[in-house]
Amino acid sequence: MTPAAKARLDAQMAFLMEADRLKSVLRASRLADGSRFENSAEHSWHFALFAMVLADQAGPDVRIDRVIRMALIHDLVEIDAGDTPIHGHVDAAAQAKAEAEAADRLFGLLPPDQAADFRALWEEFEAAETPDAIFAKALDRTPAPLLNMANGGGSWHDYDVTEDQISTRVGRTINKGAPGVWSWLQPRIAAFFRAGPR
Amino acid sequence: MTPAAKARLDAQMAFLMEADRLKSVLRASRLADGSRFENSAEHSWHFALFAMVLADQAGPDVRIDRVIRMALIHDLVEIDAGDTPIHGHVDAAAQAKAEAEAADRLFGLLPPDQAADFRALWEEFEAAETPDAIFAKALDRTPAPLLNMANGGGSWHDYDVTEDQISTRVGRTINKGAPGVWSWLQPRIAAFFRAGPR
Repeated sequence: MTPAAKARLDAQMAFLMEADRLKSVLRASRLADGSRFENSAEHSWHFALFAMVLADQAGPDVRIDRVIRMALIHDLVEIDAGDTPIHGHVDAAAQAKAEAEAADRLFGLLPPDQAADFRALWEEFEAAETPDAIFAKALDRTPAPLLNMANGGGSWHDYDVTEDQISTRVGRTINKGAPGVWSWLQPRIAAFFRAGPR
Repeated sequence: MTPAAKARLDAQMAFLMEADRLKSVLRASRLADGSRFENSAEHSWHFALFAMVLADQAGPDVRIDRVIRMALIHDLVEIDAGDTPIHGHVDAAAQAKAEAEAADRLFGLLPPDQAADFRALWEEFEAAETPDAIFAKALDRTPAPLLNMANGGGSWHDYDVTEDQISTRVGRTINKGAPGVWSWLQPRIAAFFRAGPR
């Protein structure tokens, strides 16, 4: 192995081992069985699996394999910046700054060519302007309502969230990127709230 | 939404929510910080990220996006059949039968076209004969030694594993699919064992 090849693997392995810490970042949502909070690594897997399964909900200009790659890296900045619950109260500017610094440090562990590629893919996801990113944002938001309904309310109870707030904060994003998914999900959320507290 | 479109989403969502149970299947390996055992969902994410980062370790006939998809679904059968620690003692025939039955049930939740596609991809991974599957098998085996070395021995201590056993059980698979990765990893494992118990 040449010194350059070794240095490249050194950098890649350092990044991959630092990424392990995402398994310890907890989200606001609980597993479907309610047994514990989910972490951002297993959420990233679930989101990627949603993209693989729900590919036929994407428009013809969406490249699903790019969406899957976005899913795999979209939350890595939380290793430094923490998770931001969608129904919580945060200083958006401070959070964006912390995430940009996290992206500098974490993607900066990779060899320069990959650091640039991964950073660009994460920024594309965050900007939510391309067809791939708009679909990805929709699928990132889809698992939590399903988990909440499965475990009896979950983070909706914790944050005292109303059905209207879900439609505004989550529904718009899902509907924009994956309208068929929102058409399927919205009546279920409505029925869940109609049924009252659990 | 037509009844057929709704039925398709019903099946896809049932599969995706059943898949959530992979977050509760524990592996023999611990996180890099040693704080707890890792689960098969977060391992699947890590494996997929390894594929994304270490793509340049694959031969020219490997399609990385198929390897990433294999990573995402490769452990789903563990929801019914459980994890099989590589250094443990199992009845291989009984385990293979349990996994085939798990694949029938789990992939069978999907719409028939997707059930066939996912099942075929999982079987290709298991057979480890195509370039994509051979590379995938190598990357599936790569994280655990790195985690074990990071946390002071981990499952190698638990299962009383020798360096020779690692070379036989893990090294061969990694070396076959990703020889550059094994060239990088093998001297580190040797140094770890030379340094003695921790």
